[in-house]
Amino acid sequence: MAGIYDIGLEKTAANYVPLTPLSLLKRAALVHPQLPAVIHGERRYTWAQVYERARRLASALRAAGVGHGDTVAAVLSNTPEMYECHFGVPGAGAVLNTINVRLDAATIAFILDHGEAKVLITDREFAPVVKAALDQLGRSLLVIDVDDPEYTGPGDRLGALDYESFLASGDPQFELIYPADEWDAISLNYTSGTTANPKGVVYHHRGAYLNALSNIVSWGMPHHAVYLWTLPMFHCNGWCFPWTMAANAGTNICLRKVDAGLIWQAIERYRVTHYCGAPIVHSLIANNAPPHWRAGQGSHKVSGLIAAAPPPVAVLQAMAEIGFEITHVYGLTETYGPAAVCAKQPDWATLPIEEQARLNGRQGVTYHAEEAIGVFDPATMQPVPWDGQTMGEVMFRGNIVMKGYLKNPAATETAFRDGWFHSGDLAVVHPDGYIKITDRAKDIIISGGENISSIEVEDALYKHPAVMLAAVVAAPDPKWGEVPHAFIELRDGVSVTEEELQQHCRKYLAGYKIPKKFTFGPLPKTSTGKIQKFILREQAKSRQAIADV
Amino acid sequence: MAGIYDIGLEKTAANYVPLTPLSLLKRAALVHPQLPAVIHGERRYTWAQVYERARRLASALRAAGVGHGDTVAAVLSNTPEMYECHFGVPGAGAVLNTINVRLDAATIAFILDHGEAKVLITDREFAPVVKAALDQLGRSLLVIDVDDPEYTGPGDRLGALDYESFLASGDPQFELIYPADEWDAISLNYTSGTTANPKGVVYHHRGAYLNALSNIVSWGMPHHAVYLWTLPMFHCNGWCFPWTMAANAGTNICLRKVDAGLIWQAIERYRVTHYCGAPIVHSLIANNAPPHWRAGQGSHKVSGLIAAAPPPVAVLQAMAEIGFEITHVYGLTETYGPAAVCAKQPDWATLPIEEQARLNGRQGVTYHAEEAIGVFDPATMQPVPWDGQTMGEVMFRGNIVMKGYLKNPAATETAFRDGWFHSGDLAVVHPDGYIKITDRAKDIIISGGENISSIEVEDALYKHPAVMLAAVVAAPDPKWGEVPHAFIELRDGVSVTEEELQQHCRKYLAGYKIPKKFTFGPLPKTSTGKIQKFILREQAKSRQAIADV
Ligand SMILES: Nc1ncnc2c1ncn2[C@@H]1O[C@H](COP(=O)(O)OP(=O)(O)OP(=O)(O)O)[C@@H](O)[C@H]1O
Ligand SMILES: Nc1ncnc2c1ncn2[C@@H]1O[C@H](COP(=O)(O)OP(=O)(O)OP(=O)(O)O)[C@@H](O)[C@H]1O
Ligand SMILES: [Mg+2]
Ligand SMILES: [Mg+2]
Repeated sequence: MAGIYDIGLEKTAANYVPLTPLSLLKRAALVHPQLPAVIHGERRYTWAQVYERARRLASALRAAGVGHGDTVAAVLSNTPEMYECHFGVPGAGAVLNTINVRLDAATIAFILDHGEAKVLITDREFAPVVKAALDQLGRSLLVIDVDDPEYTGPGDRLGALDYESFLASGDPQFELIYPADEWDAISLNYTSGTTANPKGVVYHHRGAYLNALSNIVSWGMPHHAVYLWTLPMFHCNGWCFPWTMAANAGTNICLRKVDAGLIWQAIERYRVTHYCGAPIVHSLIANNAPPHWRAGQGSHKVSGLIAAAPPPVAVLQAMAEIGFEITHVYGLTETYGPAAVCAKQPDWATLPIEEQARLNGRQGVTYHAEEAIGVFDPATMQPVPWDGQTMGEVMFRGNIVMKGYLKNPAATETAFRDGWFHSGDLAVVHPDGYIKITDRAKDIIISGGENISSIEVEDALYKHPAVMLAAVVAAPDPKWGEVPHAFIELRDGVSVTEEELQQHCRKYLAGYKIPKKFTFGPLPKTSTGKIQKFILREQAKSRQAIADV
Repeated sequence: MAGIYDIGLEKTAANYVPLTPLSLLKRAALVHPQLPAVIHGERRYTWAQVYERARRLASALRAAGVGHGDTVAAVLSNTPEMYECHFGVPGAGAVLNTINVRLDAATIAFILDHGEAKVLITDREFAPVVKAALDQLGRSLLVIDVDDPEYTGPGDRLGALDYESFLASGDPQFELIYPADEWDAISLNYTSGTTANPKGVVYHHRGAYLNALSNIVSWGMPHHAVYLWTLPMFHCNGWCFPWTMAANAGTNICLRKVDAGLIWQAIERYRVTHYCGAPIVHSLIANNAPPHWRAGQGSHKVSGLIAAAPPPVAVLQAMAEIGFEITHVYGLTETYGPAAVCAKQPDWATLPIEEQARLNGRQGVTYHAEEAIGVFDPATMQPVPWDGQTMGEVMFRGNIVMKGYLKNPAATETAFRDGWFHSGDLAVVHPDGYIKITDRAKDIIISGGENISSIEVEDALYKHPAVMLAAVVAAPDPKWGEVPHAFIELRDGVSVTEEELQQHCRKYLAGYKIPKKFTFGPLPKTSTGKIQKFILREQAKSRQAIADV
């Protein structure tokens, strides 16, 4: 029986609008038309201009035959064009597929094929690899070249059209097309491949809108932040920050590459207040801080989000020393970027800095827009006790879990079994309810029947002053089945021996956890700075070790 | 034809949860269990405790037979119980109907009858009027008495149960019941009656959640605010701030009554950072500020939201003098409280204070969670030009427009005609897109065919140092049809004549706008401090004046 609250109270045009980040751009343009929205070298766009350019883009895409649910791919670095794509493409009713610019031609071809891209917007810098990808793809699509004046290196134009003329052909008054349903797809992000074959993670307008706001609420961002684009926008749509910055009506400072000199120049010139990145980005910033920042005499407050890998204590300490306020977040491509935050308790501020770093090094608790994080035994779906010891798999549930994997219902179903998204990360839950990732499902080392968290071993190695980067994987051993194998990248100008590192580890680790093997040299990394353990695992023959037990 | 983004990408338990503020309380309790959530005199509850008490309340309500879509009414002041009702009642699947504690018995009886309340939770202080209302209602319902230790005045218990025993009977582990659909009703707010018969405005979980976040984003609230309850929670659910404070994991400082001494005691003792209220609340605070605050030596920063009536420039100036940061918002019961904000442009900060006050006195632009505000000619639905001159009716569209009026589809349809919620407020749009309310539809004075904004006349009167409150309505006049009639409440210990005020007005107003009649004495106000113009209009015989034209 329908109750009194169900009758005559339907959705109407007056009281219901699908959630979409397009609203956020419209509001920024209406409320703050003259504030700086995007700065890139000599180019500056206000919010009114970004809105106009996004409308032109949407309109030109429609004119080019792009319609509802079509895919528009982009191979772009952090430029104004990339920013505009985050509004202009969905504003045409289409789906934005940002592609990692460091991928090889074969993978790009795979993505263009699998995602069924109708249009490709590509920066001249990446012409050689994109050209090869297009050759391999073996079908034609509309290619639009971005010829960024800030880029003066080599690289041909590949298409018939350039981005600025394409915009010029668009209608500056075009009404951005809202999704008919907030569940409609807004973007497509292929997992960047630290593990298996790329899978196409689909985001919807609802989740993009909610995480855009959640970034502000969970981080505690004030109005009009000056946001430096150290994080690639192609990675999980820059953790939804293109949309967040519209809600914030702040300023996007573009950056074509992560370079310490350029970063510090931007921080000082534009008084950057916010940025995001993997631990390696933060180290780079700390290691290259100008003397007055090191002396605690920085000109203003800077806040950073750190994620993508567990932040080494040393990094958190280095950031504190230059007066940066760092917040640790955690998530996956499948969760729109950050879906967990190590929320700081007010009383932590009085603790010794090492203790603060330890507490902040945990992956934490749910983001506002996420409903729940659980750590479960995946076989029984029983939650692990909050004892800081028992490992389980991290799972997410809520509105910032992806729509699913494109054209892969089997993988989607597996990922969502039992009503939770399975992250493949392993964690313990501390007595205060904060999770601490102790390993990735594929990373654990089982030595003589004892579980070793490779991250724990890495943490110990990071405490050695000579160690710049450390990664530990399982290696086969005739006696123990698996033993930890450490891959080490040293800091410039220092050296250390295997024996010295073992001695050092003895201070922090039980004997069986100390690496038995060492390899020194540069580590393979993804474009987002994450160490590609799967390559190391191949080198160390990890799979063989695990299968042989 | 279904596209690739529509297949195998359905909603599942893993990636979809209805939006509801219940999530926000759960998160606060999980993440910040030990932080102070609610403080009321000697009572203090942490977020863990508030969550537990809300769960007990929900569970006890279920046990008492309350189910999906039942109405639970509350006649409560700003106490912990009132706060808990905002979670415990919807957490039982029911709808919270908070009732203005200053209403007369007949109106309360009308509301209990019309809203079909099954349960009434009522504070001992209001026993006489509530008892009379229950007698008039003529049917029995479950009455639960709140006996607040902070209240030591007279008042009988009316029911068979008291709130604390009721909670004690509930299950502290009860799982709050989420709405099956985020469109389900969460609360029922009767318009407080500055105009016609009360209408029951229905809010849904989706809107409550979105405005809870929007309060944070639109105001720019940092984490862990200390929020003083100067605004009644019964008014538009305290503009959604009960839910906002859970998202913010801040502290609610309860306040049974708006009293300058109590407010300043709380500000200093708890270091209150945020509060909301009508202009009169802010005047009270400014007029009673301790000397060191007046001297600009306040101990900390305080931010206030001002709304419910256009803030007189004098009030905005007074607040600036004591160092309070005031943000002007605007909305109606029908828009979940604030749905517009006078967003401050960074460059305003350098302007003279009078100019800042003038700019901030405008009702502004859309709140983040609202899609659009328009000012239209209601006959043609043409938007007015942005000339700061042409009046139109203010209309809203978006996710924080009510579900509709309870059991009143005709009124709902009228309010929502043409796809916009019609506010009944009249405004102009300034060239920067900010709206400025110039009158209420029912307030305008037409004198000799010329429109006079009563608010403009009031603004002029407020500039006179003797004037505490001013309200101007239409009075009949044999020659001009209508003339402005001013009702004036003077400041303590000062006096002024009709002639002096007319002389004063001559400085600011064209001759025909100067009030022809004056009445001195205290003005009738609603419990939220809004002047009840409809009473003055009766006194002045406005309707007669308008009808006679
Ligand atoms: N704060 C963090 N602490 C530890 N690990 C993190 C953190 N943030 C992210 N990660 C790791 O990164 C993974 C998510 O990677 P993401 O999906 O962003 O990139 P990816 O390259 O697609 O990885 P993959 O292809 O393996 O899924 C997480 O599952 C986790 O293992
Ligand atoms: N910032 C503001 N400036 C001017 N007027 C305001 C402002 N905020 C609210 N109002 C007035 O208050 C009205 C909303 O009142 P609200 O719905 O909150 O209370 P109400 O007592 O139910 O009034 P009514 O019964 O007349 O609708 C608005 O329509 C507007 O006229
Ligand atoms: Mg991934
Ligand atoms: Mg109203």
